[in-house]
Amino acid sequence: MVSGLAKDAIIQIVDFVTKAIELISDEEKEAMIDLLLKARRDGKKIFVVGAGRSGLVVKAFAMRLLHMDFDVYVIGETITPPVRKDDILIAVSGSGRTKTVVAVAETAKSIGAKVIAITTYPDSPLGKVADVIVRIPGRTKLAIEEDYLLRQMRGIHEPLAPLGTLFEITTLIFLDGVVVELMNKLGITEEDMKEKHANVE
Amino acid sequence: MVSGLAKDAIIQIVDFVTKAIELISDEEKEAMIDLLLKARRDGKKIFVVGAGRSGLVVKAFAMRLLHMDFDVYVIGETITPPVRKDDILIAVSGSGRTKTVVAVAETAKSIGAKVIAITTYPDSPLGKVADVIVRIPGRTKLAIEEDYLLRQMRGIHEPLAPLGTLFEITTLIFLDGVVVELMNKLGITEEDMKEKHANVE
Amino acid sequence: MVSGLAKDAIIQIVDFVTKAIELISDEEKEAMIDLLLKARRDGKKIFVVGAGRSGLVVKAFAMRLLHMDFDVYVIGETITPPVRKDDILIAVSGSGRTKTVVAVAETAKSIGAKVIAITTYPDSPLGKVADVIVRIPGRTKLAIEEDYLLRQMRGIHEPLAPLGTLFEITTLIFLDGVVVELMNKLGITEEDMKEKHANVE
Amino acid sequence: MVSGLAKDAIIQIVDFVTKAIELISDEEKEAMIDLLLKARRDGKKIFVVGAGRSGLVVKAFAMRLLHMDFDVYVIGETITPPVRKDDILIAVSGSGRTKTVVAVAETAKSIGAKVIAITTYPDSPLGKVADVIVRIPGRTKLAIEEDYLLRQMRGIHEPLAPLGTLFEITTLIFLDGVVVELMNKLGITEEDMKEKHANVE
Repeated sequence: MVSGLAKDAIIQIVDFVTKAIELISDEEKEAMIDLLLKARRDGKKIFVVGAGRSGLVVKAFAMRLLHMDFDVYVIGETITPPVRKDDILIAVSGSGRTKTVVAVAETAKSIGAKVIAITTYPDSPLGKVADVIVRIPGRTKLAIEEDYLLRQMRGIHEPLAPLGTLFEITTLIFLDGVVVELMNKLGITEEDMKEKHANVE
Repeated sequence: MVSGLAKDAIIQIVDFVTKAIELISDEEKEAMIDLLLKARRDGKKIFVVGAGRSGLVVKAFAMRLLHMDFDVYVIGETITPPVRKDDILIAVSGSGRTKTVVAVAETAKSIGAKVIAITTYPDSPLGKVADVIVRIPGRTKLAIEEDYLLRQMRGIHEPLAPLGTLFEITTLIFLDGVVVELMNKLGITEEDMKEKHANVE
Repeated sequence: MVSGLAKDAIIQIVDFVTKAIELISDEEKEAMIDLLLKARRDGKKIFVVGAGRSGLVVKAFAMRLLHMDFDVYVIGETITPPVRKDDILIAVSGSGRTKTVVAVAETAKSIGAKVIAITTYPDSPLGKVADVIVRIPGRTKLAIEEDYLLRQMRGIHEPLAPLGTLFEITTLIFLDGVVVELMNKLGITEEDMKEKHANVE
Repeated sequence: MVSGLAKDAIIQIVDFVTKAIELISDEEKEAMIDLLLKARRDGKKIFVVGAGRSGLVVKAFAMRLLHMDFDVYVIGETITPPVRKDDILIAVSGSGRTKTVVAVAETAKSIGAKVIAITTYPDSPLGKVADVIVRIPGRTKLAIEEDYLLRQMRGIHEPLAPLGTLFEITTLIFLDGVVVELMNKLGITEEDMKEKHANVE
């Protein structure tokens, strides 16, 4: 059984995600799902973008969209077709201020694509360009205080989930929740997804 | 507040991770941490490898190693120096059978690098080549039965965490727990890590 | 005007490519083009794989295939669908011995995909698994002798095109020649290709 | 022997590169080399950035810098440390207008890094932010006219080197010329470079 600080950190992350469920808006989730389903129905493409660990999180979601037969691409990878009117861009940035992510969102928007921003800050530059915002809590004041108490008890000084960890993991798990709703609405089985999974890797 | 299947899926994932803490071995975690700290002390390099979403998870960990001033590289990216004797390879594969990951682990091993395998299956080809194995539970029989009951109640047929989702997220959160232990043992603060975080992105 | 060793190196590279035209087989080129056109006609996918600079070269070709509306993917990037019977894998390796490239080619072959190997060594493990081989000269004995004389004159000791440089550049330019033939056979204009070029980058 | 349009295209590319030697400035090349050598001497980092095929070209150069023991990184890949004052950013963009590349160059510049721009257009947004510009000819008026005559003769309508092909290949070969000068100035042998080449791939 994992013990020590690793255990404390895992529990804190898990607690945070559990509380985040209360804070993430069902309306925002539904708006995101509606846009994705409409794009799929209309033969539109989905593009994803993010930097650092947020970029990894949105790529993990993109893989599942591929497994559900969406026409999906990662901005910046080799195979990236042009963005067209009514395509979707999913942009993930906790701060909403990552420079290249904002630049990509602005360009996509100017072409007529719909931008879904996943961010803690709806008033950020990324939030401002978005058609749909899904607000994911980051390390809030609450979390920081609890974290402080927990650390007092353990006699340590540093946070148990440094930098953007809580935002990144919450976003990943939230998006895996969205995957299940998409599967259900589209009547896609796990077996169908296996069929679309890379077999040469 | 997130509701519906997305909520069920998130709760199932979070429950799974909580239970996984009981199942992941503290000795295996300590063996991994010892190898990483020794490599850092001896000026050795850390390499990471994984395919698909497991690849994304190990890249997320590699970023944090970079933030803690480890000399870390991703096999297959542009900047990959040669592997030397006593360097470390961290290889992530739920099944332990991903072909290119096993090929990379075998080559690294033959050069004299130490292989840390993160997998559900210690008897897999990857497990067999490893110096240290960290067993991470995947969707076990237990999980599948609970999942079945939960789905019965909701009247749905498909799993709430398809394919490797539980393994991938559990691994990510476990590795973020390892990060906190490394920070503590090395006396690294969050502020130190911010200093090492990419500032052009 | 560029002078010095850089100029010598550029001229040597350019001379090498010019001579390589004599050595690359038109039949092999035609066989490659036929397979690609057939795959496109039959709605099959093209996959590409390569390591290091050879990987970059084959990605450059993959981008042009995308611009010509082929259904093309890079093994190992985020968006990689499964390989099916009669899909095409283009594998680039000068030595034909790069471990992960050979592993990928073998797996693709076992699934029933057609493998196009671009290599200097047709008898290599990669060559042996290939349906079509395009032999691209590397630094041949001839080149090495000329290189030696040129270096004697300049009073330097090291080659003007180290490691796989000549193979990599020759392959890139050869593949750009293949692009023009594909454009012509498919009636695709540069304007068509611009339309398919990434517009968010 | 390669014949047909592929041969014509290869010859046109090779001719273009040969002429480009006359047009690329030795002073610009020297300024680039001086900056790189100074950075290496002072323990500074080199970063590279580019989009699409220009991105692949600058990654190919980055690999060779790694082989020559420069401390080099690719913006946007997993392992990217922060940019500091007096680090170097090499940015490649034919048009000098690629949005994310310009955003990266501006941010790097604001941090105090030196920007080397490789572009056809010194007056472009990228050129304006650069400390050193290396002008690489693209498809110039001259080339277009010759191309036209060549196509007349062949009875074809489309260019033999579509889109950015001539810029991309000329840049790649020019940078491979720079590699040889760096090797020579640093006393690095091909054998040394082999020692730094990835051995697990």
